[in-house]
Amino acid sequence: MSFEGSEKKFEIIINPQSESLRKYSFYPSLLKKAKTKVVNQFSNSHCDAYILSESSLFVWEHRLTLITCGKTTLSSAVLYLVKHLDKEAIQALFFQRKNELFPLGQKTSFEYDVIQLRKKFEGKALRFGHLDEHHFFLFHLEQSYLPHPKDHTIEILMYDIQGELNSLFKSSAPAEQIRSALNLESSFPGFTLQDHAFQPQGYSLNALRGEEYYTIHVTPQEPGYYVSFETNMENPSEVLNKVIRLFRPLRLDVITFFPFSYGEDFQCELDGFVKNVFSKKRLNCGFDVQFSAFSNIKSQASSPYTW
Amino acid sequence: MSFEGSEKKFEIIINPQSESLRKYSFYPSLLKKAKTKVVNQFSNSHCDAYILSESSLFVWEHRLTLITCGKTTLSSAVLYLVKHLDKEAIQALFFQRKNELFPLGQKTSFEYDVIQLRKKFEGKALRFGHLDEHHFFLFHLEQSYLPHPKDHTIEILMYDIQGELNSLFKSSAPAEQIRSALNLESSFPGFTLQDHAFQPQGYSLNALRGEEYYTIHVTPQEPGYYVSFETNMENPSEVLNKVIRLFRPLRLDVITFFPFSYGEDFQCELDGFVKNVFSKKRLNCGFDVQFSAFSNIKSQASSPYTW
Repeated sequence: MSFEGSEKKFEIIINPQSESLRKYSFYPSLLKKAKTKVVNQFSNSHCDAYILSESSLFVWEHRLTLITCGKTTLSSAVLYLVKHLDKEAIQALFFQRKNELFPLGQKTSFEYDVIQLRKKFEGKALRFGHLDEHHFFLFHLEQSYLPHPKDHTIEILMYDIQGELNSLFKSSAPAEQIRSALNLESSFPGFTLQDHAFQPQGYSLNALRGEEYYTIHVTPQEPGYYVSFETNMENPSEVLNKVIRLFRPLRLDVITFFPFSYGEDFQCELDGFVKNVFSKKRLNCGFDVQFSAFSNIKSQASSPYTW
Repeated sequence: MSFEGSEKKFEIIINPQSESLRKYSFYPSLLKKAKTKVVNQFSNSHCDAYILSESSLFVWEHRLTLITCGKTTLSSAVLYLVKHLDKEAIQALFFQRKNELFPLGQKTSFEYDVIQLRKKFEGKALRFGHLDEHHFFLFHLEQSYLPHPKDHTIEILMYDIQGELNSLFKSSAPAEQIRSALNLESSFPGFTLQDHAFQPQGYSLNALRGEEYYTIHVTPQEPGYYVSFETNMENPSEVLNKVIRLFRPLRLDVITFFPFSYGEDFQCELDGFVKNVFSKKRLNCGFDVQFSAFSNIKSQASSPYTW
């Protein structure tokens, strides 16, 4: 059975007056609900970053971001977490899923997840992009919220990586060797990094710089070669171009969350790529969300995959 | 639960010296294996054409084409049929599946179907198109075969229909009214037609003219609005353009099967559309297969689908 690289993601923002999320000790149980566990962990003064058996968890004082791939059951973890929180303290909540490459391998569908989440929250469910194209699903709390003007996220989801890193990703190279080849310090200086190489394949990396983070997940198994890069760094357009030069995907999706203050201005265009899908929405919970799917003209023709 | 319009298809060609496939009486049992049944039937001197509760069945003397949509279990019907045939008489066999819009609703995966079929046949499994894009799966008997020089098929799979027929398709209009609006006689004269309007929605049509056939299936339910058109008529490029003018899809796939004699020459290009995916293969069972996926530039931007 093939490994599903496409991620589910859960993000929650709580009132800055409430108790810090970093103080809770229930994260191992929470991760168990999602059918994942901690592989490695490090911290800086703002955030605890965990590499998981399936992707990553970041816990800030009043924000938590949990990203999981594979066959995880993320909606169960959401319900577990909110049971332990004061519901009044929750300011914003997002649950999202990328369209999967191997949907039959999943334990739940997005539709099922939404039914579960709606037992607890009033929320809106959306699909960005046509059902027969690249698309992603989003559930968000239907509650007004004013995000910090710098609170933005860019998610870069890449398919069919063509870079020189390929042979390394597909080998059982140790994490040090992959990290050295990625040479991330030159692109994004000043971050503290932690990474892990999975056996026989797969690579995850978490990075922190003050309140900023980025995270990389590589699923090199064919069919379904997939790499994701997510960050809250400034200059998302510049980040996007750097990431594409590094991984050289044939097709990619870009999901952005921006506060209303400058979300409308963000134009996602890429040299050498055709934009196949574009969908955007101003959410009543304070964010402009954009979804774009691109393909490199070289990706058009392919030989059939045979087995 | 949404209705899956995307079809599975099974085609078998048997030795022209063997008993006519039209003489067998086991088709009701065979269709039961696929979890479908006959809604209506008519014949000409070459072929018996059945409208099914899920798509269509065509039985010629030495060829059978069974197309099913929804949650049908077509591979079981294949195994049932070949149990009743002399295996030596089978000259070619194809089993195909389009990538589904609602894969979680399916009873089997293509991978599972292939495992079942391989218990009976040596065959090749292929996927045309990237896993994350429009694609289709094909299983074929690994056995050399020389098709008749005019034995070709074109399948036109259309998404997001924009035509004036929309309101009619989405209504509970009777078949006569839909047929009259389609005005197919002007595009493809001389065919005998039979059709059926499903309740509350959906429309199927079979057409015969000598040994030629065409078949139309409309699934107007959102999300996943889908129309298919398949034929063995001459001039497939001309047919393709007529069909697109009639239904005005925003995105479509074209699958062609051609004998080697002229399969290489077929160029599938469409004015006003971008070709996103192209994949072709010369099969050792005598056919050139091409798969192309197109999108109209207007389909790029869309508002999120909300629920």
